[in-house]
Amino acid sequence: MRKVLIIGAGKSSSYLIKYLVEQSSSEHLHIIIADIKPQNIQKAFSEHQNVQIISLDIFDRQKRANAIENSDIVVSMLPARFHIEVAKDCLHYNKNLVTASYVSTELLNLSNAVKNKGLIFLNEIGVDPGLDHMSAMSLIDKIRASGGKIILFESFTGGLIAPESDNNLWNYKFTWNPRNVVIAGQGGAAKFIQEGNYKYIPYNRIFRRTELLEIDGYGRFEAYANRDSLKYQSAYNFEDIDTLYRGTIRRVGFCRAWNIFVQLGLTDDSYTIEGSENMSYREFINLFLPYNPTDSVELKLRHALKIDQDDIVWEKLEALDLFSNTKLIGIQNATPAKALQSILEKSWTLDHNDKDMIVMYHKVGYEKAGKKYQIDSTMVTIGEDQTHTAMAKTVGLPVAMATIAILNKEIKEKGVSIPLSKEIYAPILKKLEDYGINFKEKKVPYLGYNELNL
Amino acid sequence: MRKVLIIGAGKSSSYLIKYLVEQSSSEHLHIIIADIKPQNIQKAFSEHQNVQIISLDIFDRQKRANAIENSDIVVSMLPARFHIEVAKDCLHYNKNLVTASYVSTELLNLSNAVKNKGLIFLNEIGVDPGLDHMSAMSLIDKIRASGGKIILFESFTGGLIAPESDNNLWNYKFTWNPRNVVIAGQGGAAKFIQEGNYKYIPYNRIFRRTELLEIDGYGRFEAYANRDSLKYQSAYNFEDIDTLYRGTIRRVGFCRAWNIFVQLGLTDDSYTIEGSENMSYREFINLFLPYNPTDSVELKLRHALKIDQDDIVWEKLEALDLFSNTKLIGIQNATPAKALQSILEKSWTLDHNDKDMIVMYHKVGYEKAGKKYQIDSTMVTIGEDQTHTAMAKTVGLPVAMATIAILNKEIKEKGVSIPLSKEIYAPILKKLEDYGINFKEKKVPYLGYNELNL
Repeated sequence: MRKVLIIGAGKSSSYLIKYLVEQSSSEHLHIIIADIKPQNIQKAFSEHQNVQIISLDIFDRQKRANAIENSDIVVSMLPARFHIEVAKDCLHYNKNLVTASYVSTELLNLSNAVKNKGLIFLNEIGVDPGLDHMSAMSLIDKIRASGGKIILFESFTGGLIAPESDNNLWNYKFTWNPRNVVIAGQGGAAKFIQEGNYKYIPYNRIFRRTELLEIDGYGRFEAYANRDSLKYQSAYNFEDIDTLYRGTIRRVGFCRAWNIFVQLGLTDDSYTIEGSENMSYREFINLFLPYNPTDSVELKLRHALKIDQDDIVWEKLEALDLFSNTKLIGIQNATPAKALQSILEKSWTLDHNDKDMIVMYHKVGYEKAGKKYQIDSTMVTIGEDQTHTAMAKTVGLPVAMATIAILNKEIKEKGVSIPLSKEIYAPILKKLEDYGINFKEKKVPYLGYNELNL
Repeated sequence: MRKVLIIGAGKSSSYLIKYLVEQSSSEHLHIIIADIKPQNIQKAFSEHQNVQIISLDIFDRQKRANAIENSDIVVSMLPARFHIEVAKDCLHYNKNLVTASYVSTELLNLSNAVKNKGLIFLNEIGVDPGLDHMSAMSLIDKIRASGGKIILFESFTGGLIAPESDNNLWNYKFTWNPRNVVIAGQGGAAKFIQEGNYKYIPYNRIFRRTELLEIDGYGRFEAYANRDSLKYQSAYNFEDIDTLYRGTIRRVGFCRAWNIFVQLGLTDDSYTIEGSENMSYREFINLFLPYNPTDSVELKLRHALKIDQDDIVWEKLEALDLFSNTKLIGIQNATPAKALQSILEKSWTLDHNDKDMIVMYHKVGYEKAGKKYQIDSTMVTIGEDQTHTAMAKTVGLPVAMATIAILNKEIKEKGVSIPLSKEIYAPILKKLEDYGINFKEKKVPYLGYNELNL
């Protein structure tokens, strides 16, 4: 039996554990699930013969080290900031490591040491980052193998609400960490390349410079620019690409309405407001509008942001009870962002039967023998229920599959790594198809942004 | 002879030194001017019998300590971040200290030690901060002494171009540190109190929520909110005030045009742009607009920010040559803010004969016997030439006067202090009148923001 240590069995681990348990007999896996609250782990897992549950506070250094020493491979599903301590133990005890998180600078600094010990610390193998890398590289490698030169790469992902559960005016509910949604886009201008030109969008304009996307059978979406479009330029060998853009997908109209919050200052997480606990939603909004003894909050807001009387964004604001005199923020010393999050959670929390949806869209333009072509690759996955969400599935399955592939030495790459090589992505993408995670590739005319070559 | 050590003899020290030199015989002053470039000091000063010039690099700890030990009082005109080292030496050698800068947290932490040694470290005794504190407290103390309760305090200062030199469409030139102008308002929302209500303005709205001011003989001005309106709430005893607001004065129309830079993202100082050195102004602006092979930068900008064809702000942009194909940024690895500053400096630098102007405006509302009143206090000072600027005068004279007052033990306050007490401000304001720095106080109807008491 090979001992797989899973550290952190939170919301996103349902599919991960399920898959490993299902494979445990044929793959000879002994699964050790370490969590600070082991009582929360489903009975179907905890009572399985190949599963062992241990209680672990990851700040207990000795217990953490013991658990890692006593394993053959470690999967860390902890929040990203905690990976580094686990990684150091893995290095010390010569264990491979798998995470779904972005590679931190601290982790990257271990790369030579990891390589020298013949280990792999495989990261960014969830959905985004993860499935986006794998599906994009699969298409890119095929095009390059056929002699094509990539000239355009645009990649979009969104965690959304499934069409059958999409019943609010924003066409949005929180299917993942709400805080990340509220502060999305902050911390510096978005940077990307369009037809060879660097472009920058400041935070206050990001949600007004969206791009439209269409997916057969699912209708229209919009995407706003991520801050980090150029992050993987070198890893993908895109040094002389014409257009490089990464974005986040929402349903059409979301961003224009969200921009109202940005303009008012409601997404600011850098200072606390006075008296937030007993403040009504209406009083909260009024903090950001000029004082007037008689003018209504509504009219002041319409005037400040030039919102016409018949503009649908207004209905979106009203649907959140944003002007309520009686609903209270209910949080002490809230930042504007935390107050806004509390308002949104009242309206955007998943109902018991709601399903989530992951949408991915890559556009890959290329040149071959002087002609330009484009292939669009799209993927939509819908969750089964609130435990078996599309998010948990698209994060957990690639992590689980990669873990077994490392144990089986099918992945030979060493060092601190992300899944860009065919040896990693090809078998995983193939297996994911059996779980309904399919990318549809479609030839489309290459348009780019300079169709007439002017 | 009492030895006055002036550390740092930069642009703002002309009046400071002049005043001390003029008083040196009657006040028995031996003035030691320590600067890293002593050759730059005017001959009229350096050859004066009561003046001694020394070369001092303030990072030379031993030389700095020796100079401080060998003085009776220290005036630091260094950039604010360097005061703390001077302050520690002053504490060690039992010397009083005068600066025109904001009190830093580090400096405030020395307060008990300073008090225990019977010393005063008097700060914020320039123009803003400085003259604003003194003139406001003078009026506030008078009102309180007559039984009035302060219910409104609004205070505005601006460093502007004098009317006789005001010859560009922005009605603005750099009369002080250009960088501070470019990044003004950043780093968090502006916070103030209006009729008992906290109000917050995010950076992207600050320049669109201005207030108009009128000064007899000088016409109209506008003011945008400072970030720190509540900073002195407790020091001024304004705990239960209805309205508290601090702002920065510009000529009417400046802020609406400046807002274009803010909206585009040109004032961002947090990242560098690629290829800034050989980039034309036009290319720089285009970085922040969507790519299009044929549409002009002009039309893209007009469309993005909804600027009508006949809007005067457009002329302001053109007056900066903002769309020039030939003028280059000329700075390697510039941030957007640095690139913008370089463009502005081409148009907004003072001509040889230009004069600057300092404008100050306080509104003080109060209640007495159930009735509400208001007194407005205004001050305008115009510079003589580019050495004897209004800025140098309004910074240097209060510093010089306070220094002599401390030497003469007319100021008895101890500790790390700012000029809020009558003992400090009254004699200085009186003396400043002889130098043409006069505050005009005028009774006006109290309006507040809730005139009808609704």
